Amino acid sequence: MISAPLATLVTVQEAAARIKGRVRRTPLIHSGSASRRTGFEVFLKAENLQKTGSFKPRGALNKILQLTPGERARGVLAASAGNHAQGLAWAARAEGIPVRVVMPEKAQPAKIAATRGYGAVIDLHGSVFHDALARSLEIQRETGMTYVHPCTDPMVAAGAGTIGLEILEDLPEVQAVIVPIGGGALLSGIAAAIRGMRPDVRVFGVEASNSPAMKRSLDAGGLVTLDSWNTIADGMAGPSTFQETLDMCREWVEDVLLVSEEGMLEAISFLLTRDKLLSEGAGAAPLAALLEDQLKLPRGSRVVALISGGNQDLGLLAGWLEKMTSKR
Amino acid sequence: MISAPLATLVTVQEAAARIKGRVRRTPLIHSGSASRRTGFEVFLKAENLQKTGSFKPRGALNKILQLTPGERARGVLAASAGNHAQGLAWAARAEGIPVRVVMPEKAQPAKIAATRGYGAVIDLHGSVFHDALARSLEIQRETGMTYVHPCTDPMVAAGAGTIGLEILEDLPEVQAVIVPIGGGALLSGIAAAIRGMRPDVRVFGVEASNSPAMKRSLDAGGLVTLDSWNTIADGMAGPSTFQETLDMCREWVEDVLLVSEEGMLEAISFLLTRDKLLSEGAGAAPLAALLEDQLKLPRGSRVVALISGGNQDLGLLAGWLEKMTSKR
Repeated sequence: MISAPLATLVTVQEAAARIKGRVRRTPLIHSGSASRRTGFEVFLKAENLQKTGSFKPRGALNKILQLTPGERARGVLAASAGNHAQGLAWAARAEGIPVRVVMPEKAQPAKIAATRGYGAVIDLHGSVFHDALARSLEIQRETGMTYVHPCTDPMVAAGAGTIGLEILEDLPEVQAVIVPIGGGALLSGIAAAIRGMRPDVRVFGVEASNSPAMKRSLDAGGLVTLDSWNTIADGMAGPSTFQETLDMCREWVEDVLLVSEEGMLEAISFLLTRDKLLSEGAGAAPLAALLEDQLKLPRGSRVVALISGGNQDLGLLAGWLEKMTSKR
Repeated sequence: MISAPLATLVTVQEAAARIKGRVRRTPLIHSGSASRRTGFEVFLKAENLQKTGSFKPRGALNKILQLTPGERARGVLAASAGNHAQGLAWAARAEGIPVRVVMPEKAQPAKIAATRGYGAVIDLHGSVFHDALARSLEIQRETGMTYVHPCTDPMVAAGAGTIGLEILEDLPEVQAVIVPIGGGALLSGIAAAIRGMRPDVRVFGVEASNSPAMKRSLDAGGLVTLDSWNTIADGMAGPSTFQETLDMCREWVEDVLLVSEEGMLEAISFLLTRDKLLSEGAGAAPLAALLEDQLKLPRGSRVVALISGGNQDLGLLAGWLEKMTSKR
């Protein structure tokens, strides 16, 4: 048992009650094509259809709804290069409170524009996420805004975990759930919810083979820092994970599956062609694990692949599709 | 009043009871981005998430479920270059009856493969749809298979109309619905359902400016044959429409809106970027009409844009996206 777990079934259930009706209840879609291809009964939890195009609003809103009046007046703050920025800005606007996001100067213009579109004040700082993070902590000290960490905030993890409750409601006969790992809060919340209610259901994480911080840390029995973490799945790229999420994985997660870059590209293309859904690299990774035959369960098992987000730059996508379709 | 209308509220309601639980009840999704951009409250009926990637299974299944045992034994037949082939093959497989489809030799390989994947016997014949149509009528005479016409079969139109009932259930406060026109059966069924239940709701058709057979026929008061019909929306391309659907439009449809090729490309890109949905040209046309400000209703009106299908070749899509994103 973990002494202070990042998320529990109770915190997830409380989050679900708190955000109910405020975020989308995304559909769970049976994919006949993926089922025929893999031999499993494959269901897609289409969280790319969530507001802002990823699962992030769930956790951000759960956090904001628990702020004191004073905290609300001062507003919320985060550093992010992508989906967390949009989710937090969306939730802050929904609640009418100030929000500020520090983004690296190299962040995708479309993501900066979308975050600004939700009404956030944006500071562009440094070239990589860690520069933006350092600057955001300075701003936190200067302003007293509430910092909303995308990976280690218990309320953020609990909000993300509400996806797990929806999966159990829509498919009580589920046998396994596969979830992408960025910082690990999404997986932590979902694992707490599902394993708490249904210890017989297995929960798997997925990382890119090129950026396996959680897998290596699990194998080593402690936090490991990678030398490189270069993957098309920007939502899963990073040199290291967090003690809080590592503890959760050790307790609740069956295994971490690794997928190739080619596998994620194929899964993105498969989801477009067969299921008409746009996913980003991280969002396609669970299906990629199935297409690459990484899941060692009996054929016919009922498996949910979580499409965590769909905020994929269309210019990059066009290049990938062109390469893939010209090879045919 | 039309003496023998292609579809009526009653035939659509009967179809809904017949196919209930056999096809997907596709989601109606509020698009915040499209609403902010257009000034309307825009809802997307995501029929691209229907089985086979388009609305076609509704009508095909409704037709097949009414065949006699003798007709079932002989099977069903159609000519089609695309979505109808897949929808019919899917429905025939679901009912375990023989199905044969004549497709032009130039049909997209992906569509041929998908149709074959559903178990259809495929005859490739001629270079354009009309060649395939002629051959399919020969086969019909030789085999006695039941011909399932995609545009003028009352049961096909009634099945497609079930989309209208779902829209009214999910959004009773709807004020307008915009529907793509191929042969006009989809629009006929939806208009019969919606106007039959709610005469206050306005139903609009959409065609490509480059292929406006219905609009011209309405203006002329009779069937018109176009000299050219060259559009990226293969589901809406054709030299002429049908008397049955023209009669329905004259009776029930407010107006036919025309959209440009650029408008459809922009709408495809918008749906991917903002709503994470892949649509084909015809499927994006209703949103294109809104983006191009073709709908002359008060701002704030609650409008449903039907995404009729998402079977878009990814190679073509890649080229379009590359052009659009490099222009930015």
